[in-house]
Amino acid sequence: MFYIIGLGLCDEQDITLRGLQAIKNSSRVYLEAYTSILMIEKERLEAFYEKPLILADRDMVETQSDEILRGAEKDDVALLVVGDPFGATTHTDILLRARALKIPTRVIHNASIMNAVGACGLQLYNFGQTVSLVFFTDTWKPDSFYDRVKENADLGMHTLVLLDIKVKEQSEENLARGRKIYEPPRYMSIPTAVSQLLETEEARKEGILAADSTLAIALSRVGGGADNERIVAGTLRELLEHPVENYGDPLHSLVIVGKRLHHLEVDFAETFAINPTTWRSVAKDVYKCSLE
Amino acid sequence: MFYIIGLGLCDEQDITLRGLQAIKNSSRVYLEAYTSILMIEKERLEAFYEKPLILADRDMVETQSDEILRGAEKDDVALLVVGDPFGATTHTDILLRARALKIPTRVIHNASIMNAVGACGLQLYNFGQTVSLVFFTDTWKPDSFYDRVKENADLGMHTLVLLDIKVKEQSEENLARGRKIYEPPRYMSIPTAVSQLLETEEARKEGILAADSTLAIALSRVGGGADNERIVAGTLRELLEHPVENYGDPLHSLVIVGKRLHHLEVDFAETFAINPTTWRSVAKDVYKCSLE
Repeated sequence: MFYIIGLGLCDEQDITLRGLQAIKNSSRVYLEAYTSILMIEKERLEAFYEKPLILADRDMVETQSDEILRGAEKDDVALLVVGDPFGATTHTDILLRARALKIPTRVIHNASIMNAVGACGLQLYNFGQTVSLVFFTDTWKPDSFYDRVKENADLGMHTLVLLDIKVKEQSEENLARGRKIYEPPRYMSIPTAVSQLLETEEARKEGILAADSTLAIALSRVGGGADNERIVAGTLRELLEHPVENYGDPLHSLVIVGKRLHHLEVDFAETFAINPTTWRSVAKDVYKCSLE
Repeated sequence: MFYIIGLGLCDEQDITLRGLQAIKNSSRVYLEAYTSILMIEKERLEAFYEKPLILADRDMVETQSDEILRGAEKDDVALLVVGDPFGATTHTDILLRARALKIPTRVIHNASIMNAVGACGLQLYNFGQTVSLVFFTDTWKPDSFYDRVKENADLGMHTLVLLDIKVKEQSEENLARGRKIYEPPRYMSIPTAVSQLLETEEARKEGILAADSTLAIALSRVGGGADNERIVAGTLRELLEHPVENYGDPLHSLVIVGKRLHHLEVDFAETFAINPTTWRSVAKDVYKCSLE
């Protein structure tokens, strides 16, 4: 059996009993690299599972799936991924490959940001499509996400924005010299994300996002409890100017609040507001939410 | 501390280690009634947790929250819910009430149908807003869901449709006589859901849904493995005519496939198709998906 097992959002305690049992029964256990870099250390997981883990970067999962699947027709093999196996990224290719090889597969689900985002107080029913935001460079500023945000905004829906991560990047010098030396992983911060959103609005000028009248909510380490979880709500300008260290550890996500906003959503998220007064006044005056 | 703990989608093995530990530490543990009726028996959970469970129906969670929260400022109290606490239904009210009482709260996340739906092979990125479908009666056929499906369909997005559950219903006679005798729980089957969708299309005639040219995917017990999980794909007519027992145990959900359909999504879901030939031909000819 080939298992893909979701680890949830925070640390080794977020795995399910079903997932842990499958790991215990597996002859080989792969750990998708994002996970180890950004959530908890590989060594901590190995000690917890009492199993060695084989690091598998995205490239390996995509191009060396036959090696990962080797022997899974008779022994159990597991691939561990952060969040849910069908969360923000999917693992369709390797599952299709397993099927072609007549290897039975099983997915063990867990929380992902796509449902845990509800922790910010916005109703999941009111979310439209999810978008990804990649790091802009001087010459490359892909803005197709803006069309998706606009589609959601036109319907009054919230948009979950997943922020870019860069792993296994090479410096220009190392790339030129063919040295396989990689830069430390980079993840997009909330202020960077907000500044890219506002830059795109400035370029597109379709009136979807505004520094002082668009509300948004930043999330990190949802479910990690008081030590880890951070939820911060405000206008885009407030989020832009909020000290970056106050957003907690990566991964970060951002929700752009849609106009179909319910007063209970406003009340709930107010606890997370940088400035509860502007939070309520923008909800009332711009979003036309009926508040007392 | 007041905990709301997601149990995941299938049975007692789907809880997280963090969730199980919180139950063990709690002085009182409530079980939201949907869970026990529709997923696994209360007694089985009690044996597994080695704790008595107090059944809490939706009405109790909403109106007697102070009793549930009693003592949680010093002891731990837990409320167990199916899926994720912020999944299809939310628990905003009781969390706000706890805050007002200065009781610390913590949510322990898990998989919900809102992310596990990815198991059908459709990309979560391509889903629009989620809708609920309630049981029609002769005189009450609420169709506001149709507007939401249309909004999604106009953008080419998939729609997750959550199907109605009726618990604690009284017969007219028992209601008239004031007898608190409740009917067995009812859950909407896939053929009933499809027939209501087609009836609404017939009434609204906006060309969103068609028996032979709209594709959909039915899901039940996602993550439950071969013994439990059922995923069935086809045209609305095929799903309507498929024997109801082949859809597995409740809860059921239905995805209406949007036009922004990728060939990998078609390939992946083909395994679940009642008739792979019609599945591919509708994807190619109606959805204009580039397939070999």
